[in-house]
Amino acid sequence: MQHRSEETRAHIINAAYRLFSLNGYEATGVSEICKEAGVSKGAFYHHFPSKQAVFTKLLDLWLQMLDNGFRQVLNETQNIPQAILGMAAMAGTTFQTADVRILIMLEFWTKASRDTSVWQTAIAPYRNYQAYFAKLIQEGIAEGSFRPVDPGAASRCLEALAIGILMQAIFDPQATDWSKETVQSIQFLFDGLLKKE
Amino acid sequence: MQHRSEETRAHIINAAYRLFSLNGYEATGVSEICKEAGVSKGAFYHHFPSKQAVFTKLLDLWLQMLDNGFRQVLNETQNIPQAILGMAAMAGTTFQTADVRILIMLEFWTKASRDTSVWQTAIAPYRNYQAYFAKLIQEGIAEGSFRPVDPGAASRCLEALAIGILMQAIFDPQATDWSKETVQSIQFLFDGLLKKE
Repeated sequence: MQHRSEETRAHIINAAYRLFSLNGYEATGVSEICKEAGVSKGAFYHHFPSKQAVFTKLLDLWLQMLDNGFRQVLNETQNIPQAILGMAAMAGTTFQTADVRILIMLEFWTKASRDTSVWQTAIAPYRNYQAYFAKLIQEGIAEGSFRPVDPGAASRCLEALAIGILMQAIFDPQATDWSKETVQSIQFLFDGLLKKE
Repeated sequence: MQHRSEETRAHIINAAYRLFSLNGYEATGVSEICKEAGVSKGAFYHHFPSKQAVFTKLLDLWLQMLDNGFRQVLNETQNIPQAILGMAAMAGTTFQTADVRILIMLEFWTKASRDTSVWQTAIAPYRNYQAYFAKLIQEGIAEGSFRPVDPGAASRCLEALAIGILMQAIFDPQATDWSKETVQSIQFLFDGLLKKE
């Protein structure tokens, strides 16, 4: 029974992902998810209290994959700037394909900006990454790689850069190789644009 | 008659702005704009072929204001890095108030990512700014302020930073003073995070 239940849950998540991708988050209803997954409404509500809960689960799965990747990069690099560049290269691959997941997240965020009940879910991963990169930058300062900047401000700057490249990759995918551009942009931030005296 | 016609046009634009702000772009129909503006559908379609055309006009008006501000900053500063920091300070004020115009644009962009007919309108100002800042960076290199970086890549990096800060200011307005943060982030990009040897 446990196995069967897990399978139903997976069917629901996969069906929701397909429909969100095709038609968007807003345009997809619980009924359609049930139909696509081949499950009853009762089964759906046994596993998830709402459509938003399915989305939150999807988001968690995506972020777990990203976090696993980040951890691996951190283990394989010699210093923090190298690690951050490695993470940028990894994330950049996702940006390059203008992954449909990003579009769904963008739609969810737009909704969140007008709906406080959704906002907490939308803001949590963003705040986690902000704390994560502030800690990395702090370590980078401690190891002597970075100047003694404010780690919080530098982390928000790094996150702004990542979000901004992501947005550009979505809206203007042909403009450049966004995968290479992600690494290049972080390198600009590391080296600075100003001519050294 | 000319004066009256201009007035009707302004009424339509202002009504659309109020409704887009309150309910979003998608949820606002031409009928509601007409009712809010106190004009007939005939009058509306005399001035604008569609709701999207009103939005495009609104967008043009906002960007004109921004461009006028940029031009003024450029006239009042001594070199390109100073000018860009001045522009960041100016744009940052808009970011800080999490201006409702930004939300409308964000909704429009999300729509654009799924609708090629809207995409051209959405992408044009973005591409204009990219060319504008590439030219500024080129001038900054020529005047000896910037290192000889690729102006296009540096411009996309600068634009990514601006877009990313804007997104953060929308979704997490309380996190920091985004107006100060905008200038701080550009300063990070100019100076670099890495410790100088």
